[in-house]
Amino acid sequence: MVLYMVGLGLGDENDITVKGLKIVQQCDLVVLEAYTSVLGIVDKEKLEALYGKPIVVADRDTVETQADEIILQNDKNVAFLVVGDPLCATTHTDLWLRARQKGIQVEIVHNASIMGAAASSGLSLYNFGQTVSIPFFEDNWKPTSFVPKIEYNLQGGMHTLCLLDIKVKEPDFKAMMKGKTEYLPPRFMSVATAAQQLITSQQLLLPDNNNNNNKTHYGTALCVGLARMGQPTQQIIAGTLEELAQIDMGTPLHSLIICGDVHDLEVEVLKEFLVEGSKYQFPTNNSEQ
Amino acid sequence: MVLYMVGLGLGDENDITVKGLKIVQQCDLVVLEAYTSVLGIVDKEKLEALYGKPIVVADRDTVETQADEIILQNDKNVAFLVVGDPLCATTHTDLWLRARQKGIQVEIVHNASIMGAAASSGLSLYNFGQTVSIPFFEDNWKPTSFVPKIEYNLQGGMHTLCLLDIKVKEPDFKAMMKGKTEYLPPRFMSVATAAQQLITSQQLLLPDNNNNNNKTHYGTALCVGLARMGQPTQQIIAGTLEELAQIDMGTPLHSLIICGDVHDLEVEVLKEFLVEGSKYQFPTNNSEQ
Repeated sequence: MVLYMVGLGLGDENDITVKGLKIVQQCDLVVLEAYTSVLGIVDKEKLEALYGKPIVVADRDTVETQADEIILQNDKNVAFLVVGDPLCATTHTDLWLRARQKGIQVEIVHNASIMGAAASSGLSLYNFGQTVSIPFFEDNWKPTSFVPKIEYNLQGGMHTLCLLDIKVKEPDFKAMMKGKTEYLPPRFMSVATAAQQLITSQQLLLPDNNNNNNKTHYGTALCVGLARMGQPTQQIIAGTLEELAQIDMGTPLHSLIICGDVHDLEVEVLKEFLVEGSKYQFPTNNSEQ
Repeated sequence: MVLYMVGLGLGDENDITVKGLKIVQQCDLVVLEAYTSVLGIVDKEKLEALYGKPIVVADRDTVETQADEIILQNDKNVAFLVVGDPLCATTHTDLWLRARQKGIQVEIVHNASIMGAAASSGLSLYNFGQTVSIPFFEDNWKPTSFVPKIEYNLQGGMHTLCLLDIKVKEPDFKAMMKGKTEYLPPRFMSVATAAQQLITSQQLLLPDNNNNNNKTHYGTALCVGLARMGQPTQQIIAGTLEELAQIDMGTPLHSLIICGDVHDLEVEVLKEFLVEGSKYQFPTNNSEQ
């Protein structure tokens, strides 16, 4: 039997491919990775209506600890649905490996992901370097391991896609102390928060940079905020980090791009997204690579 | 009116999204970017049957020089179909810009592209650096501008996706001299040719590297050949460049990945794709980032 890992794309239930839809309709069991339903991008009821069968919702914990019982079944064709692409931003390589170890054939049905949709900013995907994740800063925990990665990309002229933290099913410690199992409401990092954290990170790291006076710092780079990519309310705004830190881009999901060298064609598109009155000055004499 | 730029995905006519299909069925004009038909991935007749309407095939030349007459129409809803994603590997940013300048609204329907499907190798898309294109070497023209980009990625621990040359509608100069307009048969670079060219490039550049003895060179990196990604006959083979240079991976399209630092989970998947008897030794004591 086969485990089909099916990407749902970024928008609503109709962003599945025709092939993916046919597969899901023929499977014995349909499992939806829970980020999906939490995000409300796709509606479980609408999916069930489109597929003509019930859906089991599995949160990340279930996928990681109960995969053997729920997803990896030797006697059933199972469709495992993931928002975006099953192997892109939210990688399910681990599940793929465990299925193979159990002798279950795995088929991937690819789809659009945020890593591809970032191209809607006008920035060429060819020029993106490594992707970083930006975690929520806490009072006593402000990790900045993404900074050297961004800097390395920048020094090589490359753009950086920053995927922003999602906190889902975080235990509520106050409730726990009263003996209750409760969860905090989900939190999704906004472009404004990410921009503010990037500014903070730079200040935290600045004293270490005495020997790197010539280093390009991301604080002066053009940045692009992305919100709800692939959805009808998609929004793209370009500006400096300081400018993006002041802008409310609305409901999740958000991502942020820090631009490296921008070429003529990229500039032409980015200008359309530049925040009004931006202090950012495009370099003159750009030359196409 | 709207110009819909619709990604077809990587496989056959059923890799379009449900949303994309609905849009195409409602458009007044459907234009197919010609790479598609040349590649034979999607069959024009099958597409026409699925859409219930005729398709105009436009080669790259037509898209670039006759877009105004054919694609950018103010009084029609036009669907412009692109294999993969409209903005990923084959970027149509220029068309997007020209449409906007004519006051035509543009909607992108994203889909899977080779840049996402590369994740099927087990390599994390997070760890990919800039993408390079490898052109066919000619007797008197062996450009190696992709080498420093690969090296920069490697030194930062990043993987490199190499997109391989496609020669379509190349004029036949011999026929031209006889006054005929004829085209050479299309050529698609194989993984073996790309691997051989990379080995050649290293030899060409070696004398310049006297001061860079400590540089990581891609010649010793693990490489991954990709063929027909997203299609039923998809093939993935890992090995050294020397090994891949000897392997025939069959019909197009091919791509090649040069691996940077590989992490535990990546190694687990890559081992399944390693060519039998490979000389490549995975580093011991990998640690997950």
